[in-house]
Amino acid sequence: ARNYSISVIPGDGIGKEVMPEGVRVLERAASLYGFSIEQTWQDFACCDYYARHGQMMPDDWKERIGQPDAIFFGAVGWPDTVPDHVSLWGSLLQFRREYDQYVNLRPVRLMPGVPCPLVGREPGDIDFWVVRENTEGEYSSVGGKMFPGTPREVVIQETVMTRHGTDRVLRYAFDLAATRDRKHVTSATKSNGIAITMPWWDERVEEMAKNYPTVTHDKYHIDILTAQFVLNPDRFDVVVASNLFGDILSDLGPACTGTIGVAPSGNINPDRTAPSLFEPVHGSAPDIAGKGIANPVGQIWSAAMMLEHLGEADAAAAIMRAVETVLAEPGLRTGDLKGKANTEQCGKAIADAL
Amino acid sequence: ARNYSISVIPGDGIGKEVMPEGVRVLERAASLYGFSIEQTWQDFACCDYYARHGQMMPDDWKERIGQPDAIFFGAVGWPDTVPDHVSLWGSLLQFRREYDQYVNLRPVRLMPGVPCPLVGREPGDIDFWVVRENTEGEYSSVGGKMFPGTPREVVIQETVMTRHGTDRVLRYAFDLAATRDRKHVTSATKSNGIAITMPWWDERVEEMAKNYPTVTHDKYHIDILTAQFVLNPDRFDVVVASNLFGDILSDLGPACTGTIGVAPSGNINPDRTAPSLFEPVHGSAPDIAGKGIANPVGQIWSAAMMLEHLGEADAAAAIMRAVETVLAEPGLRTGDLKGKANTEQCGKAIADAL
Ligand SMILES: CC(C)[C@H](C(=O)O)[C@@H](O)C(=O)O
Ligand SMILES: CC(C)[C@H](C(=O)O)[C@@H](O)C(=O)O
Repeated sequence: ARNYSISVIPGDGIGKEVMPEGVRVLERAASLYGFSIEQTWQDFACCDYYARHGQMMPDDWKERIGQPDAIFFGAVGWPDTVPDHVSLWGSLLQFRREYDQYVNLRPVRLMPGVPCPLVGREPGDIDFWVVRENTEGEYSSVGGKMFPGTPREVVIQETVMTRHGTDRVLRYAFDLAATRDRKHVTSATKSNGIAITMPWWDERVEEMAKNYPTVTHDKYHIDILTAQFVLNPDRFDVVVASNLFGDILSDLGPACTGTIGVAPSGNINPDRTAPSLFEPVHGSAPDIAGKGIANPVGQIWSAAMMLEHLGEADAAAAIMRAVETVLAEPGLRTGDLKGKANTEQCGKAIADAL
Repeated sequence: ARNYSISVIPGDGIGKEVMPEGVRVLERAASLYGFSIEQTWQDFACCDYYARHGQMMPDDWKERIGQPDAIFFGAVGWPDTVPDHVSLWGSLLQFRREYDQYVNLRPVRLMPGVPCPLVGREPGDIDFWVVRENTEGEYSSVGGKMFPGTPREVVIQETVMTRHGTDRVLRYAFDLAATRDRKHVTSATKSNGIAITMPWWDERVEEMAKNYPTVTHDKYHIDILTAQFVLNPDRFDVVVASNLFGDILSDLGPACTGTIGVAPSGNINPDRTAPSLFEPVHGSAPDIAGKGIANPVGQIWSAAMMLEHLGEADAAAAIMRAVETVLAEPGLRTGDLKGKANTEQCGKAIADAL
């Protein structure tokens, strides 16, 4: 029988509340589709761990995680006790880099039962992917301060893009587009203002496009692209973007389809030289943590993406059908979607609908 | 009688078509409100000039512009003949820097007659300002390439923020908020990911806030902030942002209120050591240029912002009333707003409504 080892890292806040529902649905899918899941839960990569140890993860975190088939991640961050850049650079952003998860893949899809904030859009109208570069670019740790603490203070941070890092994420985006009906790639740029890195990014896009004669492509500056997400979200198929631009677009996209509360993401190492990591797009949400009311759909949809990545496409598709069934029922979805269920009830309903 | 010298720079594409309407309304306002406008039209800062001279502006552009009370600008860029980063860095971005126009001020306001893409929002619901840093930050020209043209290629661009540059735009934002009913500043950050410049930006916001006990403030990471523009645009009062984040938010904001086609902006030197520049948010729009159908409201609203800056608040308010009257009339607004008028008819209608 097929067996998958999964490293489970709930993290902080509502991460701890939605993770059990993600695991519940995963286990149910396993028993229905004839595979098994071997879980190893980790108590690090969270601010509780930081409180006890003064760092987000143990020095030997790589050994402890070992070589699982995937990492199932909740959410991290608790700004009241640990500044966000400390908690994130000490956990999630380290995974992305050290495991070379160079693609951050996020669907933007309008789901039944999720009220769309845009006028006149129906489920089916909006359905595209954001492919975000996930290891370099604007998220660098290179830079520093000159004359700190004085009126002359200058603070510098470098954006670092490599051909290696750029080409591989562009290739992933074009490959993905080639498998889809519309076969279209939109590149997010800002080559009119960010005049060194972004004109070069545009060149790499043109180069890569030459390898894909069946895939069309265009580009938008990031400012007008965010406007187009609101005005014409039905135009997009695959949107490829740098680390920062992808970060922005993959929160804005889900917002245009109603809520980031249900959106999933994969931090993917396509070369499979290290585990990929799957997590909801939402954060740890300190404002609602501890109440048991968080929406578990982002975590559960992330489980479906993880199963897809592991080759269990049928189970993944079944989870998505179950999610759609439950979202369409006010009694079964959570309060953020004007439903009546709490986190656990919603998670159980999805497991049952499987 | 009050007299203002205005440098008029139409630029490229629809800039040339909407500018005459901006000037028409300006002249009408002058005659009605007892001041005069002395115009000097400039034929540079456009791609035609580039075609003739190999650069966007003459070397002595500063002397030619002289010391006008303000610059009235159309739109620049014609990517088929001049790459955007060349045309923009050779014109608009030079003005912003050399004239130290360190505030880019853009209203986000839902207007009558402009269909809102967001469900259930009415004119009056959305009304806030984006205050964008306009001279430094992510728009730097510092950086370069290593191993160019090879597989090892590395491209670096530096974000440069100074205390001088940051504090003055924050001060402007807090000052502006202090004059408003809600007295609230929202800061756009990304201190969880952009871990050198943005945590420092957050610190400067906290420092500045101490000087304004009557103004409240909060911060959002840019990713979730773009989501909030779509989900809760009624929450904002004054949003302050770095150059890049402000660029994004000030296209996204107008899109959330229906169209960037009517949005104006001021590139302001609050210390009045050099002229400020007023321009529509839209670009030169090569796709519709030459047809006489562009919406002139962005240019005309920019004229109102310019008059406000020059101290002609009554005339500015009158222009805005005329704009609202005309936008509410399908026969008088342009085709992009499902109206029947062309550029000139719409401009004349606004001048008449004055
Ligand atoms: C044309 C471009 C360089 C410019 C900018 O990014 O500043 C424009 O988008 C704007 O917002 O004025
Ligand atoms: C928490 C933060 C560092 C992270 C990012 O910016 O990458 C998050 O917004 C995301 O998109 O996964």
